[in-house]
Amino acid sequence: MSELALAAFAAETGSHVVRPPHGERFRRFAERFDERAFRERLASLGIRWAARSTAGYPRALGAIFDPPAGIFVRGEAPLELLDRPCVGLVGARSCSPYGAHVARAFGRELAAAGLVVVSGLARGIDGEAHRGALEAGGETVAVLGCGIDRDYPAAHAELARRIAATGLIVSEYAPGVEPAPWRFPARNRIIAGLAAATVVVEARERSGALITADLALEEGREVMAVPGEITSSLSAGTNRLLRQGATAATSAADVLEAFGLEPAAAEQAQVGPEAERVLTRLREGPCAVDELARALELDAGRLAAALAELELAGAVSEAAGLYRA
Amino acid sequence: MSELALAAFAAETGSHVVRPPHGERFRRFAERFDERAFRERLASLGIRWAARSTAGYPRALGAIFDPPAGIFVRGEAPLELLDRPCVGLVGARSCSPYGAHVARAFGRELAAAGLVVVSGLARGIDGEAHRGALEAGGETVAVLGCGIDRDYPAAHAELARRIAATGLIVSEYAPGVEPAPWRFPARNRIIAGLAAATVVVEARERSGALITADLALEEGREVMAVPGEITSSLSAGTNRLLRQGATAATSAADVLEAFGLEPAAAEQAQVGPEAERVLTRLREGPCAVDELARALELDAGRLAAALAELELAGAVSEAAGLYRA
Repeated sequence: MSELALAAFAAETGSHVVRPPHGERFRRFAERFDERAFRERLASLGIRWAARSTAGYPRALGAIFDPPAGIFVRGEAPLELLDRPCVGLVGARSCSPYGAHVARAFGRELAAAGLVVVSGLARGIDGEAHRGALEAGGETVAVLGCGIDRDYPAAHAELARRIAATGLIVSEYAPGVEPAPWRFPARNRIIAGLAAATVVVEARERSGALITADLALEEGREVMAVPGEITSSLSAGTNRLLRQGATAATSAADVLEAFGLEPAAAEQAQVGPEAERVLTRLREGPCAVDELARALELDAGRLAAALAELELAGAVSEAAGLYRA
Repeated sequence: MSELALAAFAAETGSHVVRPPHGERFRRFAERFDERAFRERLASLGIRWAARSTAGYPRALGAIFDPPAGIFVRGEAPLELLDRPCVGLVGARSCSPYGAHVARAFGRELAAAGLVVVSGLARGIDGEAHRGALEAGGETVAVLGCGIDRDYPAAHAELARRIAATGLIVSEYAPGVEPAPWRFPARNRIIAGLAAATVVVEARERSGALITADLALEEGREVMAVPGEITSSLSAGTNRLLRQGATAATSAADVLEAFGLEPAAAEQAQVGPEAERVLTRLREGPCAVDELARALELDAGRLAAALAELELAGAVSEAAGLYRA
């Protein structure tokens, strides 16, 4: 039986199948399936196919309860990338500035330390995790919940291009398959399946990222959650994971510890004394410009210069009028 | 041997003693100690004394490794208050608006559900915890790190008066003993010792509240920590506790669960539809007025009215220009 026929059948029927279905419909489909033509079409699109029964299939993914029949892959990295230590970084689409900041920083620091950052190319946490990894010049893998040829969401087409330039884009869905809500939980099992540990950065009480965490737990993979304020509904899901026994990820170093790795040589931002003062204050918690100026007794011009210096150094970020370190 | 002589000796020598010291100095002190005069002086100051060997001594405190020889007590409540289920609420003096908000809300909700809220009368988290309990018309106990007659810090003299009016103020130190830095960790063991569970609301990496947590753990009491943003140094201590296995306190209900209690009938704030919209937005996370007005498309006057309504209902609070629910 060709696993590729199975993937093509799933695409044609809009269904989710990981084992050959009994019954006439699939048998007839498999009989008339032209594998060679399908492979040629994939090649012309620059898409690789790694069947479950072949050596190129990622070992960690093969170990889950319901591994995909195969994965479609595009991007410049070799397939072996998926056998390197992978960390899942997932979370809310409509994340807070805090979540975005942490996802970006974790993506950067985990990739810098040599982990492959796996996420789902979604808006919010996923996108920031991929961007952070790219910023560090590290490798990142986007797992899609739609056909391998699609860039979904459309707003992330350019991000997908950058990921593909050095990393990989992965999907169990053949070219042409439309995104559908039920495909995202299925996609999440691939993220959890590739990753030795999955970190939920920010998630509401009912959230796809929590599904990923459940799937990871079921597969015996480590699940970590980033603590957040209990008054923020965007941290309700992550804080609940902590109550349920997930390990708290309070820094990228905590995540690396789960992999037995040390943080990459700490790139301490080399900044001037005024920027240093601003940074010290921001480590206390996020702060608006007015408040910073008042607390540090700095005039607007010098404060703006210090903040610009810190932003360029990647030491602080700004969102919704608040700076955070 | 009189335990009161021991407490008086500790006061006179500026030392910390829980057992009669060997040697001449204490022997001679005990010989000339006029217990009756001392007790009369206490009575004239409205101060009670509960010796370790007597029935009035709190059972939970008597179970710790180094219980005080006795406790001095002032306030209107009977001593039996200390044998009711007590929860320790502790944390940073220079807390954030987030920490203050949570301490106040926990103090209010835990006291409303019938727990005795025990804290240290310090600025920041301690003060907010006491205030919350008082707001709920509940009982609260302040444990001092100085003589029982002192109101320390001075800024909390009025708060101490309100606590004493319905609850208790407790110290192992006799009248006249000055506050000293080493007395605060000693005081913390009394908070941990009275409480069946201690909740650290907000704490830096090195913090007296973490000493309280360690002492509580050593005594086999439950330690809970409130998660906070990993980018805030004020949550570094609490998030570290979570990593070390402390239970996450994500709501007052989580704390009550540790006591086998249900939350008091949820007093849902009855507010108008506009206030409801503002509340919903603030449950997403703290927000400045400008941002609220923009996000909800409310003019300044109507927004101000909604916020005033919510503040009166105790549903939101404001600090440093940010509102939070």
